[in-house]
Amino acid sequence: MGRLSLLLLAFLTPGAAIPVPPALRAFSNLHLSSSFTSRPAIVMNYSIHYIEQKVDHFGFSTDKTFKQRYLIADKYWKKDGGSILFYTGNEGDIIWFCNNTGFMWDVAEELKAMLVFAEHRYYGQSLPFGVNSFKDSRHLNFLTSEQALADFAELIQHLKTTIPGAENQPVIALGGSYGGMLAAWFRMKFPHMVVGALAASAPIWQFEDLVPCGVFMEIVTTDFRKSGPHCSESIRRSWDAINRLTRTGTGLHWLSEALHLCTPLTNPQDGQRLKDWISETWINLAMVDYPYQSNFLQPLPAWPIKVVCQYLKNPNVSDSQLLQNIFQALNVYYNYSGQARCLNISETSTKSLGSLGWSYQACTEMVMPFCTNGINDMFEPNSWDLQVFSDECFRQWGVRPRPSWITAMYGGKNISSHTNIVFSNGDLDPWSGGGVTKDITDTLVAITIPDGAHHLDLRANNAYDPKTVLLARSLEVRYMKQWIGDFYASRRKKH
Amino acid sequence: MGRLSLLLLAFLTPGAAIPVPPALRAFSNLHLSSSFTSRPAIVMNYSIHYIEQKVDHFGFSTDKTFKQRYLIADKYWKKDGGSILFYTGNEGDIIWFCNNTGFMWDVAEELKAMLVFAEHRYYGQSLPFGVNSFKDSRHLNFLTSEQALADFAELIQHLKTTIPGAENQPVIALGGSYGGMLAAWFRMKFPHMVVGALAASAPIWQFEDLVPCGVFMEIVTTDFRKSGPHCSESIRRSWDAINRLTRTGTGLHWLSEALHLCTPLTNPQDGQRLKDWISETWINLAMVDYPYQSNFLQPLPAWPIKVVCQYLKNPNVSDSQLLQNIFQALNVYYNYSGQARCLNISETSTKSLGSLGWSYQACTEMVMPFCTNGINDMFEPNSWDLQVFSDECFRQWGVRPRPSWITAMYGGKNISSHTNIVFSNGDLDPWSGGGVTKDITDTLVAITIPDGAHHLDLRANNAYDPKTVLLARSLEVRYMKQWIGDFYASRRKKH
Repeated sequence: MGRLSLLLLAFLTPGAAIPVPPALRAFSNLHLSSSFTSRPAIVMNYSIHYIEQKVDHFGFSTDKTFKQRYLIADKYWKKDGGSILFYTGNEGDIIWFCNNTGFMWDVAEELKAMLVFAEHRYYGQSLPFGVNSFKDSRHLNFLTSEQALADFAELIQHLKTTIPGAENQPVIALGGSYGGMLAAWFRMKFPHMVVGALAASAPIWQFEDLVPCGVFMEIVTTDFRKSGPHCSESIRRSWDAINRLTRTGTGLHWLSEALHLCTPLTNPQDGQRLKDWISETWINLAMVDYPYQSNFLQPLPAWPIKVVCQYLKNPNVSDSQLLQNIFQALNVYYNYSGQARCLNISETSTKSLGSLGWSYQACTEMVMPFCTNGINDMFEPNSWDLQVFSDECFRQWGVRPRPSWITAMYGGKNISSHTNIVFSNGDLDPWSGGGVTKDITDTLVAITIPDGAHHLDLRANNAYDPKTVLLARSLEVRYMKQWIGDFYASRRKKH
Repeated sequence: MGRLSLLLLAFLTPGAAIPVPPALRAFSNLHLSSSFTSRPAIVMNYSIHYIEQKVDHFGFSTDKTFKQRYLIADKYWKKDGGSILFYTGNEGDIIWFCNNTGFMWDVAEELKAMLVFAEHRYYGQSLPFGVNSFKDSRHLNFLTSEQALADFAELIQHLKTTIPGAENQPVIALGGSYGGMLAAWFRMKFPHMVVGALAASAPIWQFEDLVPCGVFMEIVTTDFRKSGPHCSESIRRSWDAINRLTRTGTGLHWLSEALHLCTPLTNPQDGQRLKDWISETWINLAMVDYPYQSNFLQPLPAWPIKVVCQYLKNPNVSDSQLLQNIFQALNVYYNYSGQARCLNISETSTKSLGSLGWSYQACTEMVMPFCTNGINDMFEPNSWDLQVFSDECFRQWGVRPRPSWITAMYGGKNISSHTNIVFSNGDLDPWSGGGVTKDITDTLVAITIPDGAHHLDLRANNAYDPKTVLLARSLEVRYMKQWIGDFYASRRKKH
């Protein structure tokens, strides 16, 4: 099992090449239409800006700079008693995150807040070496979380010195997924820049042996087990069925037809690629198992796993019947619109995510061990093998992972001296397994959302929101108001 | 006015070359004998170790490593209820700091402490590229405070995993001068590694406009004004006298003889070098104006400025008489032993400090503005000119300073969310002007030592210690005990 990215799931066996999504572009674009976005009510008006950033904040032998993109929305911002909500961008195009973080837009008026969305270096348009950014490990050398946090610090400094009225306002960091990790780490490392952080679905403990490597896939499995009778059992049985079918040319041909694959499977090794792609699909579904029709990674119906599981009620069927059922299930994810002509096993989600960048990050700092045993989870057994992983990283990027670095840098479980961080997690979200789901101190608090998938709380208000997410959001607003209030109280005391 | 290093004072006008101390080696070595060291009582027994460190903690394109040196003294260490005192080494040979930080040795038994002294990269024996370390800006690229802090984090991690009994012990960071800045910053950035920090004479605010650029030289001046009648006035008058004398060949020749210079002054430009060297001498004296005979930067009598000022009682004398008096005063600093045959204006202090390294650091991160106006201080007026400074840095190292980086990185004056840092400062120490001399919060506290020069509190107990430093040390021990106690109390609560 290889690099499991946070949003873009490059869920690969070692040795597999990183998929550079080539096709189905038309299909994807078709559905970025408004009927699937969750925000028809509020118009997201933002201005686009660029700041000149040092390529290397931590070394002086080069003074090279690049343009980092960021967005500003200040419709509800008040210079008097206002605040700045700062989205610490993660592995993708910042406009996509902006459009998928309706929570910030929903609370802007109440917090008199300016919204800022900062793009993460090496993603979207913020490419330190332009088209050459992913050329080799020398160009990728500056793709680290530390450099990204330093970008955020410089950007906040810049906003405070150039926007009249911004200087004396409290800034709050917000982010989801890897962006949530960055929000939490930013508060830990730059508490002089932000008064607090909302880290939504941030698996800051998905490293080394901080949590069991199997927990992620166990949560995926639980989601399927609870969403329909025999659902996870059907999936568990499907792997051997695929193994049997991919042994022969006839089987490969049949499978390619049955699954409507755009590119037919031609050899037994393709079987592994197929299984990886299907696994990733189930994982993605677990992440976006939202209670309403949505379009985050793909256009999907409400509670998509329930819909998927309607096709997977009976595990005790023939291999061919089981795989035909699996096709119906996959179709829920890949063809909710009904317009896809074939399925492409080289891609699983939106083009807005940067697969190359995350693949490199997973091979350097973001070394997240994953494993399965086929017993507590519905997948084929797969142990975590750092050496194999490392060799594959070296082959692909010329770098070796440093698995203990993130813990040394950011503290692992020993973070109780920090303050003002809210960690929110949805119980349906497999990433909650590596997240902070219990209060650490009075000011390092955990909010759990029983019916929530991956950072549901960051999404816009929706009529179908479960009560638990409404409660979570209102708690989050309360904490943010508290930080803002403390900031102004402490300023008044000084003057 | 150029780079003012913390201990090694490369106090240069822009355009002057960095002095690479060439001579008087025999003279210096002579006086590193026991009669001048302040610690004849306790034997400093330590073992020497090396740890393999990444040259670049913040990038992955190179996996190159180097050997960082560190010292361990564990005579009084107890595995049961003990602690680890970790000296965050600064710009010099770690053995020299070890020998000059008697305080740690004095409190080791009381705190059941293991002492660890970690050498700063690019100093002493800890050279990332061996003899080529200072060759060019490419080799120097990894000489930053962030890399040094990461070294410390990795070293502590290493000690905890390799020394049985160390794992569950509280670590406290200690340091003086730049080492004190590192101790404070280490607690700020890596609070999961150390329970607290003692930052002695740490001018963390000697950056940008956090304090007035003139404060440093004003304190130097005050030290001389208070140490004898007309003392600072004599020095103030000496600059013009030198200017007049260095205008002619006869004057240059006379001055070279009168000051017993090893290398005669040959042209008017040498006048500036001479003045810089004399200025540095007064600054150094202000730093080491200790109440007893000592040998930190040079072998010196007790209260050396008072001794110096005995020769500078009368400012209203002829130029030649004034300079003869200045020679007598300089002689206190450069020839307390009486064995120096001549004075070398290319050096001002011990060889244990790394002048090249600090010159580079001052040209990159450690951009400390200094200025004089000749009114509030006894020096020739000199304004802070960043552009000139930057150009000189570029000429010498091929790098440009980033004057606002340290504030962005470490918070400037906005550090109140951190905890457990004691900032100690001596009122006689010119670096106190850039230090924290007032409590920020209950756990970010300032200790001032009215009769103290540069980190007097870190020096070994001495019969001539003023009461104020004894009080400071006992407060420091009390805080450290509190941090250690809190650590063990919180551990007991968990189990």
